[in-house]
Amino acid sequence: MKKTSKEAQQLEMMGLLILFLLLSVFEIVHCKYMVYNTSQAISPNNNKLNVHLVPHTHDDVGWLKTLDQYYVGSNNSIQGACVQNVLDSLVSALLADKNRKFIYVEQAFFQRWWREQSEAIQHTVRQLVTSGQLEFINGGMCMHDEATTHYIDMIDQTTLGHRFIKEEFGVTPRVGWQIDPFGHSAVQACLLGAELGFDSLFFGRIDYQDRTKRKIEKSLEVIWQGSKSLGSSAQIFAGAFPENYEPPAGFYFEVNDASPIVQDDITLFDYNVQERVEDFVAAALSQANITRTNHIMWTMGTDFKYQYAHAWFRQMDKLIHYVNIDGRVNALYSTPSIYTDAKHATEQIWPLKTDDFFPYADRVNGYWTGYFTSRPALKRYVRMLSGYYLAVRQLEFFKGITRSSSSTDLLGDALAIAQHHDAVTGTEQQHVANDYSKRLSMGYVEAAELAASSLACLVEPSAFAGCENTTKFQQCPLLNISYCPPSEMDLSNGKNLIVVIYNALGWKREDVIRIPVMYEDIAVRDSAGRVLESQLVPLSDTHVSLRNYHVKAYLGQTPSKTPKYWLAFTASAPPLGFSTYTISRAKTTGAGSARSSIQLFQDSDRSTSFEVGHEHLKLIFSPEGGKLAQYVNHRSGVNESIQQSFSFYSGYNGSDEDPQASGAYAFRPNGTFAINPQKQGVTTVIRGPIIDEVHQMINPWIYQINRLHKGKEHVEVEFSVGPIPVDDGIGKEVVTQITTNLETNKTFYTDSNGRDFIQRIRDYRSDWDLKVNEPAAGNYYPINLGIYVKDNKKELSVLVDRAVGGSSLVDGQIELMLHRRLLRDDGKGVAEALNETVCIDTGQEMYSPFLLAFTEQDEDNWMSSHVPTFSAVESSYRLPDNVAIMTLQELTNKEVLLRLAHLYEIGEDKDLSVMSQVELKKLFRGKQIGKVVEMSLSGNQERSEMEKRRLVWKNGDGDGESKLTRGASVDPGELLVELAPMEIRTFVIQFDDIFIQQVGDGSTKVSVL
Amino acid sequence: MKKTSKEAQQLEMMGLLILFLLLSVFEIVHCKYMVYNTSQAISPNNNKLNVHLVPHTHDDVGWLKTLDQYYVGSNNSIQGACVQNVLDSLVSALLADKNRKFIYVEQAFFQRWWREQSEAIQHTVRQLVTSGQLEFINGGMCMHDEATTHYIDMIDQTTLGHRFIKEEFGVTPRVGWQIDPFGHSAVQACLLGAELGFDSLFFGRIDYQDRTKRKIEKSLEVIWQGSKSLGSSAQIFAGAFPENYEPPAGFYFEVNDASPIVQDDITLFDYNVQERVEDFVAAALSQANITRTNHIMWTMGTDFKYQYAHAWFRQMDKLIHYVNIDGRVNALYSTPSIYTDAKHATEQIWPLKTDDFFPYADRVNGYWTGYFTSRPALKRYVRMLSGYYLAVRQLEFFKGITRSSSSTDLLGDALAIAQHHDAVTGTEQQHVANDYSKRLSMGYVEAAELAASSLACLVEPSAFAGCENTTKFQQCPLLNISYCPPSEMDLSNGKNLIVVIYNALGWKREDVIRIPVMYEDIAVRDSAGRVLESQLVPLSDTHVSLRNYHVKAYLGQTPSKTPKYWLAFTASAPPLGFSTYTISRAKTTGAGSARSSIQLFQDSDRSTSFEVGHEHLKLIFSPEGGKLAQYVNHRSGVNESIQQSFSFYSGYNGSDEDPQASGAYAFRPNGTFAINPQKQGVTTVIRGPIIDEVHQMINPWIYQINRLHKGKEHVEVEFSVGPIPVDDGIGKEVVTQITTNLETNKTFYTDSNGRDFIQRIRDYRSDWDLKVNEPAAGNYYPINLGIYVKDNKKELSVLVDRAVGGSSLVDGQIELMLHRRLLRDDGKGVAEALNETVCIDTGQEMYSPFLLAFTEQDEDNWMSSHVPTFSAVESSYRLPDNVAIMTLQELTNKEVLLRLAHLYEIGEDKDLSVMSQVELKKLFRGKQIGKVVEMSLSGNQERSEMEKRRLVWKNGDGDGESKLTRGASVDPGELLVELAPMEIRTFVIQFDDIFIQQVGDGSTKVSVL
Repeated sequence: MKKTSKEAQQLEMMGLLILFLLLSVFEIVHCKYMVYNTSQAISPNNNKLNVHLVPHTHDDVGWLKTLDQYYVGSNNSIQGACVQNVLDSLVSALLADKNRKFIYVEQAFFQRWWREQSEAIQHTVRQLVTSGQLEFINGGMCMHDEATTHYIDMIDQTTLGHRFIKEEFGVTPRVGWQIDPFGHSAVQACLLGAELGFDSLFFGRIDYQDRTKRKIEKSLEVIWQGSKSLGSSAQIFAGAFPENYEPPAGFYFEVNDASPIVQDDITLFDYNVQERVEDFVAAALSQANITRTNHIMWTMGTDFKYQYAHAWFRQMDKLIHYVNIDGRVNALYSTPSIYTDAKHATEQIWPLKTDDFFPYADRVNGYWTGYFTSRPALKRYVRMLSGYYLAVRQLEFFKGITRSSSSTDLLGDALAIAQHHDAVTGTEQQHVANDYSKRLSMGYVEAAELAASSLACLVEPSAFAGCENTTKFQQCPLLNISYCPPSEMDLSNGKNLIVVIYNALGWKREDVIRIPVMYEDIAVRDSAGRVLESQLVPLSDTHVSLRNYHVKAYLGQTPSKTPKYWLAFTASAPPLGFSTYTISRAKTTGAGSARSSIQLFQDSDRSTSFEVGHEHLKLIFSPEGGKLAQYVNHRSGVNESIQQSFSFYSGYNGSDEDPQASGAYAFRPNGTFAINPQKQGVTTVIRGPIIDEVHQMINPWIYQINRLHKGKEHVEVEFSVGPIPVDDGIGKEVVTQITTNLETNKTFYTDSNGRDFIQRIRDYRSDWDLKVNEPAAGNYYPINLGIYVKDNKKELSVLVDRAVGGSSLVDGQIELMLHRRLLRDDGKGVAEALNETVCIDTGQEMYSPFLLAFTEQDEDNWMSSHVPTFSAVESSYRLPDNVAIMTLQELTNKEVLLRLAHLYEIGEDKDLSVMSQVELKKLFRGKQIGKVVEMSLSGNQERSEMEKRRLVWKNGDGDGESKLTRGASVDPGELLVELAPMEIRTFVIQFDDIFIQQVGDGSTKVSVL
Repeated sequence: MKKTSKEAQQLEMMGLLILFLLLSVFEIVHCKYMVYNTSQAISPNNNKLNVHLVPHTHDDVGWLKTLDQYYVGSNNSIQGACVQNVLDSLVSALLADKNRKFIYVEQAFFQRWWREQSEAIQHTVRQLVTSGQLEFINGGMCMHDEATTHYIDMIDQTTLGHRFIKEEFGVTPRVGWQIDPFGHSAVQACLLGAELGFDSLFFGRIDYQDRTKRKIEKSLEVIWQGSKSLGSSAQIFAGAFPENYEPPAGFYFEVNDASPIVQDDITLFDYNVQERVEDFVAAALSQANITRTNHIMWTMGTDFKYQYAHAWFRQMDKLIHYVNIDGRVNALYSTPSIYTDAKHATEQIWPLKTDDFFPYADRVNGYWTGYFTSRPALKRYVRMLSGYYLAVRQLEFFKGITRSSSSTDLLGDALAIAQHHDAVTGTEQQHVANDYSKRLSMGYVEAAELAASSLACLVEPSAFAGCENTTKFQQCPLLNISYCPPSEMDLSNGKNLIVVIYNALGWKREDVIRIPVMYEDIAVRDSAGRVLESQLVPLSDTHVSLRNYHVKAYLGQTPSKTPKYWLAFTASAPPLGFSTYTISRAKTTGAGSARSSIQLFQDSDRSTSFEVGHEHLKLIFSPEGGKLAQYVNHRSGVNESIQQSFSFYSGYNGSDEDPQASGAYAFRPNGTFAINPQKQGVTTVIRGPIIDEVHQMINPWIYQINRLHKGKEHVEVEFSVGPIPVDDGIGKEVVTQITTNLETNKTFYTDSNGRDFIQRIRDYRSDWDLKVNEPAAGNYYPINLGIYVKDNKKELSVLVDRAVGGSSLVDGQIELMLHRRLLRDDGKGVAEALNETVCIDTGQEMYSPFLLAFTEQDEDNWMSSHVPTFSAVESSYRLPDNVAIMTLQELTNKEVLLRLAHLYEIGEDKDLSVMSQVELKKLFRGKQIGKVVEMSLSGNQERSEMEKRRLVWKNGDGDGESKLTRGASVDPGELLVELAPMEIRTFVIQFDDIFIQQVGDGSTKVSVL
């Protein structure tokens, strides 16, 4: 007689009862074929709420599975996801009803799918795109991250996608769709939004406190000006979604989803049309309460949905049909473009938003600031290849794209997908991180072939045809682990090592080169045969063992020989050009490189302070533990006390009550612990004419070198961190602090994707009253170029060689997170501390280091038998100091894509924050420029067309900027390109006469060399 | 320096290494549109293994979700399943490649989907069916259970599906496909296989010991003769799958399945064509090792798969393409029909299989014998309505189908799906069981309207038109809980209760009627006005409270009045006809019904034995606790000691080591416990001229009545069991044992779906050496009609009113499981113990009880103003004793479906196991038979065509039966139908002149009445 038994029994009985009631209603109607009215457009009634249903899928270009696994749908035990299914099933779903619409975002997937389709399907899809049923949104290869990406990478990956869309479909995406990235950058708004010609930008993730306030103020949708310099000329309508990028609760319709489907067959049980209409109207009205105008958007989809697209459309068809019969709200198939136009048509005035949306917290203590540093080795790999990609495309152009058997395509694709918000972010699974690395490495291999073959041609004095294999140039991608077989060559018997040094920047440039060598008697000669000053720096035991360990891991065998020294010398190269150096055994003793002096300081030598440096810049280390104590620049007159320290945050592991742990995304410290240099440590001081170094083994897993180069006024700090020990069961996030006496008043500055700098104030947000719950994590910001603090006298800047997280948690101090958790020991970081006013030039040099190519020669006549120096620009010309070449890439053998970027913000520098000018004629030595067309940033439309078409939005804060924010249009005769502060201009240049003339008889005429 | 850290790091490094190897292979090929060769047919090479890929989905017609929920895909939180998706996505998947094939099984789903399709889709699907790409298999409304179903229900539900397929598509299914039912019956093989015209029958579940032996002997595929009587004339090629009905491991391709997809794009990573081909060949060869001939079948699908059909076909396309390029085996798209033809073409000789595949165990201790009894109330409801459905279709025919506003369609559909192997089996979720009940109840309501309106016409003496509403007949579906408002009417003021009693059998018949009445002075008169002997049996308190409780539960209110008595009298009715009785207040005292005598025996009255019974049959109860002690039949001379007892098995709950618990499917007892009558119990003995009853309250949840009817030579035992208490935390399976001294030598007999009887031997299987691990569960068999034991002198038979499980675990004893677990208290069981030689007649009467219809009349002239008796057959005619009408149903107003069944097996009875004859002319009184066409069992093809077409198979055990197993074809002049033992013959009969002639002027001419 248990209760449960009785209940079960009553259920059955009630079943019998109910049927009598149903029968009278249902006996007449029978199920039949039903046509739903899905043709609803925007209501002409301004008081009626329009619910824009935007069918979409969010397809991560790698995350828990690799790109390929997501595409084909393998490895489903990790995650059920198959993009192929989405696109396949979409076609017939859209064909079934011309009112249905869909947006597709990630071109890395789409391009792959497109290539596999039959001509018939391609034809159908072209029609669907033309009719607007299928719309490309965002349109880059991936939905890039916005925190750990460099703006050049963001532009490159978007360009790859946009140009494909333009070429295949003749259309240009109109809307930015960054729905998943974990915070949003100013550069996204101004460059990857407005400058692409986008009319709007939508995203899902903003700080939970910010979101709450914006809901109340109906300010989730704003006009966003991401650049102070470009102001309203690069503003965009930007919308943060009320929750995330998913449908309202209960409106998920993937196969097997649990949301109640619309059951409208009155002959079946569970008929629920009225109930579902009520749900729909209630959710719509709720959203309308926090939205300006009578338009709201429902993002109908989420990660990897629409595997069987019909399942979603069937339900949306019914919802549109029945909701519109109900009539309280107006439901329609829509896209973000249609939604944007509808918003614009209301002539609403929108709030103004400046700066960015960092850092992002999705809840109390849930700051997504850990990924700023996660997987630092991958982040470095991406950044290194990004600069390499830029340089190799230049070399490809100089040689001529049609003459190359290899290309930069693999590298371009690999870099593009590495910008994905679960790639360079470090938030993917280990095997997926491996996959990105593999792709990058494959891309590198092909690009390196191209670089080598291009240089081989450029060094040939005459016969350009067939030059590719004349000289075999080798490069050293593993130089960072002291491994460079060509420089470790046998120099006996009069052999020479030829080093060609290519400079991808638009200015002549000098830099210290370091390569491993086997000998103690080495001489370096320049192209004129002059012996240069050089220095041999001993290779430390630590670095030798790192070299051997990693070479074994990468190549499968331990190197048989071990170089004893780094050879260091100062090389110079012309703009967009190279110079050549010869390295050989010194003919006489003493004629070769200088040996470094070495001085050891035991930790017990507490009485001795010491100094290192050349000329102007000196660092003074305190007696205790070799700690940095003083920074002296004799030229600028700075003499500043400076300390550097290490500590780690212990990662919070989460509890039942407070589950937010520290992880790949989140930085959730549970405490902070100083890392004190070990008691028995030895500080090694190496001095010489080119380089001074201070080596310190902080503990068994942190090794640091402070390095000062002759002629440079910054300090280079090289960290080798890892593997971080976790045998105590505690995850660790390792940081370094650089502490000065600057009075910084809670204020510091960090870059936006390596471009604009944004002011940050500790424990403060300009958009709302911040409730502080994470004093460290909540003040971390992403750093791609650098971070600085300043007071009214001095400035301390730290530039970084990869994306990291950083902050200023104490006045006068900069903190950088170097490595996190226990994932690898490969986490070397290089940071530069300097006090110059601007860090732009150095930043360019870090992004685009010299490209070194090696070859050997038996005889000593290289300089006479080859072209020893080369520059693509006119010999008298160099770019202005405030302008850089962002892109120089041959698209076809008639067209070149050129991007020029002004490097300074308005007001940043009195001399350089001004309008600047580039003379195209001088930039392309010996080439006849036929036509110059200014394009949108991604090169998919003419800029003039774009400006005509772009929507103009109203914001309540006025548009009072000066109109001097843009350079004038380019006169076809003068061919002068003006660039205003922070302006980037993109051109497609057609040459009448290309670098190599293709002549009919099969021979070629070299017009430049 | 933890190991995990190093491993992670090495992984990444290895990634970099691998790429160099890959690059050399992959650099040339690029992905593109690929056409797969899927056109492979059966190999002409007899030595080559053909792998028949049979794409299929298994769509339960209710289980964890209801039929409707499965169809539309709602309630996915319980189970992700949507049949609509399957059928929708299938169409385009089949259109995409004409070599692709698919089979569809469950017509309840298909019919629903079909009605919802546009004409264009219907046209397409017709073409797919015509071309053979889409083939209907099995073809009933559901895949019926084979243990707890009655053969008439199996045939009816198959007929509904088959006739729809024939009408819409003009095709007839060729293959039985019982892949999921939990054991397989002999009736399935002979009737629902061979007699349907099927060429083969496939299934997935047979005993694990049996399967092991069959694999070794390559005897999973056999020739199955399911009927001793029909022998080789009803044999069928039958195949048990090697494992289940799923694909080989690793070949599941539903969206999000984890099997490795075939990755053949050489430009992507994870290319695995050769690996997958190896997997395929290995799985094929492994299966070939246990299979005769060079053909094996892969069942490519499982429960509710193909929601996005393309996902499966994409992979199978690739597998066929690459496996055939490999060439070791021949892979092809196939269907069970193609496979069957291929098997047949080999001219292989197959092993012979007789009897059935019960019970089914999937592992040690895993006997699926619990569901024979699970949900006994649902099982009873199904059986009760099955008989009702048969009767109402007869009445519908008598009235004329075109004249009816209501029909039996709802009831037919509801009964059809209730035969599903997770419906009547009791293995569905509670809410789904409720859904089946609701449907059955709705079907009953409509059928009851039809029955009432038909009777209203049949009782009208002349004007047949417009008769429907002349008399309002009521029926009493809740008579089993003593609730019958029309019979409880107010009989004061000269009102009369008119009871029309319809007999659906082909013989005149007498039976005792019991209806509740309010009065003590009641007289019953027959149609001639003669007062009949009748008896008032007091309604026990137990039954009054059951009545009140359930009426409240069903109807929402407690009945205001409570009847005091059952009125019992013996009624008779002609074949396929009715008679009429009048019940009124007795005119004079003593002229009415006899009052019953009542005698109470306290448990303390241990000295007194007592006897009940009429005429020949007596039961003697022992003094101790009123236990049954002796069965005496004075006519047959039987005087047998007989005991009846109760016990329960405690359900095993499963453990980690041995997880097989007792549940809805499995019977896994953990012990057995006697249920002894409670000490203070009272035995009530009721005696009268019509009925004697012995009431015993065994314990608070078991109430039992032994009932003996005047003129009947069997004992009726009515059990009221439940709710079974589980407050001790132990599930219980309640059984009763009837124990005699018969020497039965481990042998007993159970029916197959209410048709043939099969010999069972305890702890023995004829097909293999049984290893006994469950002495009770492993000896349980399904019972639909009855179970008997016998020795050379006597026989003890128990007939049942619904499906139950039973056995003979001790010689001389029959055990029945009455109720299980704690699901409801509604578990009343009625069983009949008798010792007649055959139980056929009584079985027919139980299946087709009198249909009672009530109305009231103020005056006493019913018999003169209405037709008091009716029979559809000629007055001199009745069916032979060994033949029953299984179906009499008007299909259109010109055609009638008639099924006649011989009831006796060969050798069962010396007089009745002979060829019999039915005279159709006399069966249809007053009608002109135009054309008689003998059909297959499901009425979807002419029998002669079917016999010509059916494949003839060879078995190693010879086909030596006499050819006397079938009746001769029907002479169109004589119209005599011969029926051999166990033969069922199906006819479509066209009448030149139907029951009611439709005349042009709107009036009607009644040609019979």
